[in-house]
Amino acid sequence: MTQLERARNNEITLEMEKAASKDGIDPEDLRRSIANGNTVIPANKLHRHLEPIAIGKVASTKINANFGTSPYDADVEKELRKQEASIRHGADTVMDLSTGGDLDSIRSTLIAACTVPFGTVPIYQAMADAESIDDVDGDAMIQAVRRHAEQGVDFVTVHAGVTQDVIPLLKGRLGGVVSRGGSFLVSWMMKNEANNPLYERFDEVIDIAYEYDVTLSLGDGLRPGCLSDASDKAQYHELKVLGDLTKKAWARDVQVMIEGPGHVPLHLIKENIEMQKEHCHGAPFYVLGPLVTDIGAGYDHITSAIGGALAASYGADFLCYVTPSEHLKLPNIEEVIDGVIASKIAAHAADIAKGFPGAMEWDDRISRARRNLDWDEQIRLTVNPNRAKMLREQSEIDTDECTMCGQYCALKAFTED
Amino acid sequence: MTQLERARNNEITLEMEKAASKDGIDPEDLRRSIANGNTVIPANKLHRHLEPIAIGKVASTKINANFGTSPYDADVEKELRKQEASIRHGADTVMDLSTGGDLDSIRSTLIAACTVPFGTVPIYQAMADAESIDDVDGDAMIQAVRRHAEQGVDFVTVHAGVTQDVIPLLKGRLGGVVSRGGSFLVSWMMKNEANNPLYERFDEVIDIAYEYDVTLSLGDGLRPGCLSDASDKAQYHELKVLGDLTKKAWARDVQVMIEGPGHVPLHLIKENIEMQKEHCHGAPFYVLGPLVTDIGAGYDHITSAIGGALAASYGADFLCYVTPSEHLKLPNIEEVIDGVIASKIAAHAADIAKGFPGAMEWDDRISRARRNLDWDEQIRLTVNPNRAKMLREQSEIDTDECTMCGQYCALKAFTED
Repeated sequence: MTQLERARNNEITLEMEKAASKDGIDPEDLRRSIANGNTVIPANKLHRHLEPIAIGKVASTKINANFGTSPYDADVEKELRKQEASIRHGADTVMDLSTGGDLDSIRSTLIAACTVPFGTVPIYQAMADAESIDDVDGDAMIQAVRRHAEQGVDFVTVHAGVTQDVIPLLKGRLGGVVSRGGSFLVSWMMKNEANNPLYERFDEVIDIAYEYDVTLSLGDGLRPGCLSDASDKAQYHELKVLGDLTKKAWARDVQVMIEGPGHVPLHLIKENIEMQKEHCHGAPFYVLGPLVTDIGAGYDHITSAIGGALAASYGADFLCYVTPSEHLKLPNIEEVIDGVIASKIAAHAADIAKGFPGAMEWDDRISRARRNLDWDEQIRLTVNPNRAKMLREQSEIDTDECTMCGQYCALKAFTED
Repeated sequence: MTQLERARNNEITLEMEKAASKDGIDPEDLRRSIANGNTVIPANKLHRHLEPIAIGKVASTKINANFGTSPYDADVEKELRKQEASIRHGADTVMDLSTGGDLDSIRSTLIAACTVPFGTVPIYQAMADAESIDDVDGDAMIQAVRRHAEQGVDFVTVHAGVTQDVIPLLKGRLGGVVSRGGSFLVSWMMKNEANNPLYERFDEVIDIAYEYDVTLSLGDGLRPGCLSDASDKAQYHELKVLGDLTKKAWARDVQVMIEGPGHVPLHLIKENIEMQKEHCHGAPFYVLGPLVTDIGAGYDHITSAIGGALAASYGADFLCYVTPSEHLKLPNIEEVIDGVIASKIAAHAADIAKGFPGAMEWDDRISRARRNLDWDEQIRLTVNPNRAKMLREQSEIDTDECTMCGQYCALKAFTED
């Protein structure tokens, strides 16, 4: 039985207890939200050492870190270090997007070391396994989902919403199709003059997901790749298809999240969240960024933190981080950490705005330490104590002042007591 | 005559022409907005080599970079390099907040090399000149404003809104008073049992400002120093006083901006902007961040970029950058650059959201280059080409791919044509 099925049967599972405790929320509230499809606990029955967390309406905003090998760099040790650093710096989930090297072996190595929900995009496997991309068939796509499920993957991106009828709507896009899965499937459908197998055979995907309790993360293969394409017909057409698929999965007790953009200007973020909640019946929303401008390559952890904070404050549940390397190269470990921290800041700022219980306490504690010039406590409480400590130590002073103001410290000049 | 006076006399000055041309706006629209007090051109008559810009309702969102010596580090060469780097990376204005070394000499050295509007906080001079902070008197405060005006400073922060009657309202604040000027003045008023000389003798400040056409940046000495204090009575009390002082200055043809917070949770930013516009009669709003969480020391360029983007999208006109070193130490040149870029991203994202003419074109150009895999053009158009180039070069590949996806490039898989 899946978490969704058990929630519907009024059972509070061990996973629900643990996830609720982690967020400081009521387990019964969590159960009810899972039963309604508004919250998920991605927890493959075969993923050992998993510490379950909840993603959705009643939970705190969660963040995901992507990594994985590429055809240019297929060293699993590097990716293991990125995974470890991501989790240590606050990633709530990770996704292995490997496309280079022995994917099965890389995946099993990473999962074995992973204590947080582990996500993948099985279609990359189908693409990598084929002699040529043109050789990929529907069986291979479904088979990849099964193989990942068997290995203990907790959530899989499935681009089942990319359908043949959307192709004419892509005409005139400035940015084209920027999802690797989406782009492959559009191209596949055009060459094969057939509809997307992941859509046509979605029941088989559901069967696999049910068997292992894999959460389906319905991919936004047609997400905008630049501001100009944001909220276009193709994007919203896919979103509606994903809404239909959500109902199909729910009818079979399979947990669902919906993936979203991407590149969205500030003033369209609210509309994007509202459209998703409406078309996808309140399923959790997992956004990539969104980036609020296209000019930020080298700094897209910042452009996406701006969009992510706003998106989550409007109701997005789950933020996929973006690293400073986005649009330029595969990130290294420092860039992975920068991405995690930026995303963590965005998620936390949104939790404060949403009034998530306990969120403001963290800020109050650090502000009290700052007011009291208690540097150790202040540094301990920052989002990345190592970095704060390093910056403070650069000053080479041993007073309670800092090198910004010295004796003109505002906190020293005026004291109430 | 000041720019405001001349605008009211229906004159389009050379400064207005240049500032309008820089923003691609109509000079007559700019003149009208200046005449109404909604926009300013900070341009001291004695500041040579200044390239004038407009800040306010009809202009693009502008950003400011702070630097300056401290008692711990008083090397003018370092600050000169920070100024040069700030301007080169896109700072529209700079502020010299020096408190260490020979302040007059540092200031004149910096101004001589400065092509953008140059701001200062004269009260720091009064504090630094005095034997002890307790010795500072009203004459010294006014005299400092005059000295800065004579040196060619284009805008000065004057904390004239910190008045005696606000002191009881500070009771119970978690973060205390975090503005150096504000904290000093509150302490001064308590010790001297007298009101703030900058408020009592505001007419003298206006006289000086008029004489040199220095724009008054009415300081928010009581801005919140943590989220918990955001939008409290003390903050809004000061804002109302600043509104009254704005009218006084306008009556004498002196240009005015209003400074604002600081630390503000996401959901209170809109209210902050609306309150300022209402209480201060549409004078341009110059915000410091705002930071949307207190946990970000080491990353406060990001916490402030989130708040700044949102603030500007709601109508803030001018963003003061925050560096990663904020709350920890005096920033070095790399941290200054990080602050400028983060702020630039926030301002640009807001200009897109506001529909500022031409803002989206930049994004469309870079997106077209990205779609065409034109790396040179893409890198040339990013917010900091040096950094994008450096990251791309780390990949050591010479194809049109990048190391993220290699042969699985989404942009290559699907092409319309």
